Order: sequence, then structure tokens, then C-alpha cells
Amino acid sequence: MFELLQTDTQTAARLGRLTTPHGVVETPVFMPVGTQATVKALDPRELEEMGTQIILGNTYHLYIRPGLEILQAAGGLHRFMNWHKPILTDSGGYQVFSLAQIRKIHPHGVEFRSHVDGARLFLGPREAMAIQRVLGSDIAMVFDECPPYDAPPREQRLAVERTLRWARECREQPRAEGQQVFGIVQGGTNAELRQYCARELVAMDFDGYAIGGVSVGEPEPEMFRAVDMTVPHLPVEKPRYAMGLGTPAQIVELVARGVDMFDCVLPTRVARNGTAFTRRGAFPLKGGAYKADFRPIEEGCDCFACRHFTRAYLRHLLNVNEILGLRMVSVHNTHLYLKLMADIRAAIRAGCFEEFRREFVAGYVPSRRVLSARAAAGLER
Amino acid sequence: MFELLQTDTQTAARLGRLTTPHGVVETPVFMPVGTQATVKALDPRELEEMGTQIILGNTYHLYIRPGLEILQAAGGLHRFMNWHKPILTDSGGYQVFSLAQIRKIHPHGVEFRSHVDGARLFLGPREAMAIQRVLGSDIAMVFDECPPYDAPPREQRLAVERTLRWARECREQPRAEGQQVFGIVQGGTNAELRQYCARELVAMDFDGYAIGGVSVGEPEPEMFRAVDMTVPHLPVEKPRYAMGLGTPAQIVELVARGVDMFDCVLPTRVARNGTAFTRRGAFPLKGGAYKADFRPIEEGCDCFACRHFTRAYLRHLLNVNEILGLRMVSVHNTHLYLKLMADIRAAIRAGCFEEFRREFVAGYVPSRRVLSARAAAGLER
Repeated sequence: MFELLQTDTQTAARLGRLTTPHGVVETPVFMPVGTQATVKALDPRELEEMGTQIILGNTYHLYIRPGLEILQAAGGLHRFMNWHKPILTDSGGYQVFSLAQIRKIHPHGVEFRSHVDGARLFLGPREAMAIQRVLGSDIAMVFDECPPYDAPPREQRLAVERTLRWARECREQPRAEGQQVFGIVQGGTNAELRQYCARELVAMDFDGYAIGGVSVGEPEPEMFRAVDMTVPHLPVEKPRYAMGLGTPAQIVELVARGVDMFDCVLPTRVARNGTAFTRRGAFPLKGGAYKADFRPIEEGCDCFACRHFTRAYLRHLLNVNEILGLRMVSVHNTHLYLKLMADIRAAIRAGCFEEFRREFVAGYVPSRRVLSARAAAGLER
Repeated sequence: MFELLQTDTQTAARLGRLTTPHGVVETPVFMPVGTQATVKALDPRELEEMGTQIILGNTYHLYIRPGLEILQAAGGLHRFMNWHKPILTDSGGYQVFSLAQIRKIHPHGVEFRSHVDGARLFLGPREAMAIQRVLGSDIAMVFDECPPYDAPPREQRLAVERTLRWARECREQPRAEGQQVFGIVQGGTNAELRQYCARELVAMDFDGYAIGGVSVGEPEPEMFRAVDMTVPHLPVEKPRYAMGLGTPAQIVELVARGVDMFDCVLPTRVARNGTAFTRRGAFPLKGGAYKADFRPIEEGCDCFACRHFTRAYLRHLLNVNEILGLRMVSVHNTHLYLKLMADIRAAIRAGCFEEFRREFVAGYVPSRRVLSARAAAGLER
């Protein structure tokens, strides 16, 4: 289901092709986040126009609203939201541990109260897989426990043990037709734990492997360390997915480390605050500096927003709280992420990825605004 | 500039063609409202796809934000918002009297404080026309005074006198190239005042005439009375515009009374509360009844929303506050208004408008939800 097409000679970057029931995904790939059965502010046509190959859905959120009965009656998530390309669904483990009010952790799952209405619910490996089976996602994630990045060693170890036990249970559940299941490596920034977790999961032979426990508020060097200590223990012939990451520059660096798949709420989340990404960093479009700036958000960009509107106009829309403003910044930002991935793939193919990476990262100025948004973004994903 | 193509034999309905610098408008026409240089939640492509011929802009709102300097630098409103078809701009008179905190009414305008930041501003006929000249709208409206519908007779009379004096002043101002100017008839529900105002305005020879002082919270019969006492005093060879109206059934009735142009915030305003229009009335899409209803909003509708999404999906989006929900209901509602006008034009052309009207009005159930939204909608337009 995953073909490794090419491996970069100077970095660990890989070019791959992932075949799913709803189509083929060229990797490295960015997956726009459609938590509640919609990528925030965007419609499916806009997503297709910008070259979206696969989107994310979220088991926890969809289980709470609209609920399984409706999703089942609709014939699954693809038909419910009218999205015909691949979907990867997160298992809900992350949300149960970060959003919900946990009442009790049982051997086979978690008893919790919904963050929406306080309803008593239960999610475990069996339930998460059953829900994802109904959703009919192309790729389902195992139900894991993702502790905070500063959790004490004992807690990290317990989370790994639980994650492994639950992964094994997920592995045994029935799946939707053609559905792939990915394992999730936890272990914080403890090299020995990461290695242990990765090896145990690999022994269970999943269709792909995710690096979890990143994008949970940790400083960037810790995130890279966690990835660096995980990737070597993952099989080369399976796709690797860094969950919840990252900024454009971080994604370039992670591709260089051998990661194939990414998802992040940043492009749409910061758009709603009026922050626009460019290939040289992000900037607050609401700023007075742009009030009579009749250039597009980013010169040379061919997204719908840049082809039709100026910074001055979008700034006005954002300042008077008009929906078209945040819509168009969401379009531009998501397009930028997808275009970046296409450029990354082209660079790997052409054998010049290391050069591309050096230039891109040198030209990219990280923005404090974006980094703080990233720290807060975890809950939403 | 206005050609009267056909007059219905059984009603006062008319088929017309209005030629403007940015193109031809077939009447009767509905003009989606783009108060702040955007039709709320919609983009220009969506507006064009649903057959929008002309949109509204608002002098008061655009004068405050983004301000004249930016609009001038942009090269006018069309270029600022990237809309290449005709635009009609309201003069700001209505907003000065309803939104702003008035400090003093002078012979040549009104001193007021902005509703946004309390800034001291002045708008009068000279200023309103100068702003509309910069905006470069195809049709500019005179700066009028629109009193509340329950204003005492003396106040109605004073408003008419002021409206006439200011209309005369507007008439003398320079215009953008090809820009038409419409007069506005006030006079509440006083037949003698309406007649007087209409005749005086007609003597000034405007390019078209609006019926103002409607859609200001009055009961529906009062609105029809105000229109009925105004239309007979307007010249047949000029377009007639009922400001701020109405529901679909009201529009059909007003066309039958000889009105050619309409604008109303209802389709987009109620969409944001989750109310969807159909040709038989409006309904709250958030209702539990639609949670597993996999039909489109309206069967047979070919709008983008109905071609792509179900009631169950849109209900879900509205209930979890996802932007795509209110976007798609805005698309459907606006499309419905525009399709209704196309059907009205076809019926007049085919000589069966009276039949169309009878059937439409008999089949349309007015919704209390929509009527109360209409009462509150005045401020926004």
C-alpha cells in the first residue's frame, strides 16, 4: 500500500506513494485538518483546487457531534461531508486526554465526560476502531495515550505501556474495507522509551507509524529530538507520520529526517486571527502597514486569494470581521502548505532537496505569533 | 439608460433593462447587500455563479472603514473588492440617522459620531456624493433622511423637506463617469406627503427613484400602503427601487405593484442564524428534525450548497459553529432570491406573471423568525 519511490542521498528525505481506497497520496504530504467534518472555513472545491490529497477527521469530535448514528446513516464520513479523496482519522486518544474531563482510566479505555455537554462517554481501542470503521476512513489511528511533554518519567512509561496494550487491541479489531491502521509511538523525549515503543509497535506490523507526543507544547529542539530518536526504529518500507506538525520550516526539517506525512491546524487557525503565511515567514495582515498595500498576500502565489484580492482589501475584511477575510487567508495559508509539499517532492525527485532545505530554512523567519499559536493548537487538532 | 421592455397586462409588473458602466442589469432584479465591500460570507465567484447582476455597497460604512483614502488609492470600490459587475451604493443617510450618534443636524448635513470608534464625522449631500464618486458606483443614491415608521407627522414632514433639499444639492454634485443618481421618496404612510415628495423629486429628473422609509420595522400592510401611495407618482420610464425589501413573497407582491429593484440583508442575515429559505417559506436548519435528513436544503435547487451538501451535514456544521455551514446557507438563500427574480422575469415575459404570483404567494408560508429578523435588519443594510 506504500511504495518507497526514492530516498534522498544527502538527507533522510523520501519520496513515496500511498494507495488507499479513495485514491493515491504522493508523499511527503500535508493533510489539512477537518476536525469536525470540515476543514475550517474551506469548502471541498477550494481544497481540491489547492491540490489537497488527503484530509484529517477526528474520532472524538465526530463521535460527540454529529454522533455515530448519523454518520452511519450518511454512509460514512466521505459521503457525510462530500469529500471523495482519502481521509485519515485520528483515534480520539489525544482529545480524551487533553479535552475531556476524565473520570477513570480502565484497562480497556477511558471513562470521561464530553467537553461539550458533560455527557458520560467511554472510548477505548475497541470503541475507537469501531467508530473509525463507521467513519470509513482510509487510514485509522490506534487509540493511544499522549501525556503532556513535561510529564514525569513514570507517567511517560505508563503511557507507553498503555499505548502498546491498546495498539495490540486495536490491531485485532475489524476494519472498514481497505482501511489501513497506523500505530503511534509515544515515549516523550526518553530515547530508550521511544525505541522500546517503536520496536513493540513494529512487531505488531501496522500499515504505518506515527510519531505522537510531539506538538504538545514542547520547545522546538525537544520536538526534533523526539523525532530523531524515533525514526531510526521505524521500518523504511512503511509511511511515517509526525502528528500535529508543524510550521513550514519545521516540516522541511522533518522531511529531511525521513518523515512522510504531516497534519497541522496552524494554516487555518492563525488565518482566523489574520496571520498570513509566506515562504519567508508569517505576518499579521491586520497591521496598519498593509492598509494601502495592493499587492497579493504573497507575490507569485497562484492561490485563489492571491489571484483575486489585495492585502489592503483582506486587511479591511479582517478588521471589520467579515468572513471572507478569514476565508481567504485560510485559502492562502493552506495552499502555501500544499505548494510547499509539492516543491519538496519535486526537489527530492530532482535530487536537490538538501539545497532546497538549506535555502528554505535560511529564508524562513519564525514568528512568535505562530509559535505561540502552535503551542495552543494542540487541543483543536 | 433604462429601457422598459414590457409591462404586464394583469398587474403593474414590468420587465426592464438598466445599462450601467459595468454592464447591463435585467429587471426586476435583486441586489445582494455588500455593506462593507463584501456580501457577507460569499466570494465574488460564488456571487457570479448564482447569477448576481449587481450588488450594493454602503457609503457610511465604507467611509468609516476602510476610509476614502484607501478606496481612492485602490481605484474605487469595484477594484478594491474585485467585483466587475455593477454596484449601487446607498448614500449613508439611513445609517447616519439609525446607527450613528447624531450631534447636530445642519442645513447641509449631519454632524455625528462614528458607531465604531466615536470619531466626529460630517455627512451631507455634498460629502455623500463625493464619497460615491470616489467609490465609482454605477448607481449613487441621494443623501436622505429616513425617519422611524412611527415618527409623528411633523417629523415626517420635516424629513421630506430635508430629503428634497438635500436631493437638489446631490443633483448638482459632480459624478463619476457614467454614474447614475437615484432620488429617494420619503413620507412614511402619509399619502399626501409621499405624493409631494415623489413629484418634487421627479421634477428634478433623477435616473431612477427609490421608495425609502420602508423596511424600517413597519408592519407589512403599512409597507405595501407606502409603496402603493408612491408608485403612481413615479415616471414609467425610470427604474423604481424598494429599499431594504423584502421576503420572497413580499418581493413578488412588490413586482406586481411595479417595483423593479430590490435589496435585502435577509438571505445572508438569517443564514448566519441557520435559517434556510425555500420557495415555500423559511425553516431553521438547526432543528433536530433534520439531523438525519440527507436531502439537499431544497429539492430541485441547483445552487452550490444543494448540489454538494445535505441538510444533515449543514445542520451539523451550524450546530458546531463551523463557518462552512453559514457559508452554504448564505449561498443557498442568496441563490434562491436570484432564481426567484429570474423566474419572475420569465413569467412576465411569458405573460403569466399574475398566475405565477398567485401560486407563489399562496404556497409561501411567512416565518415569524424571518419577519423578526427583517425588523432587526434595517441597521445592517
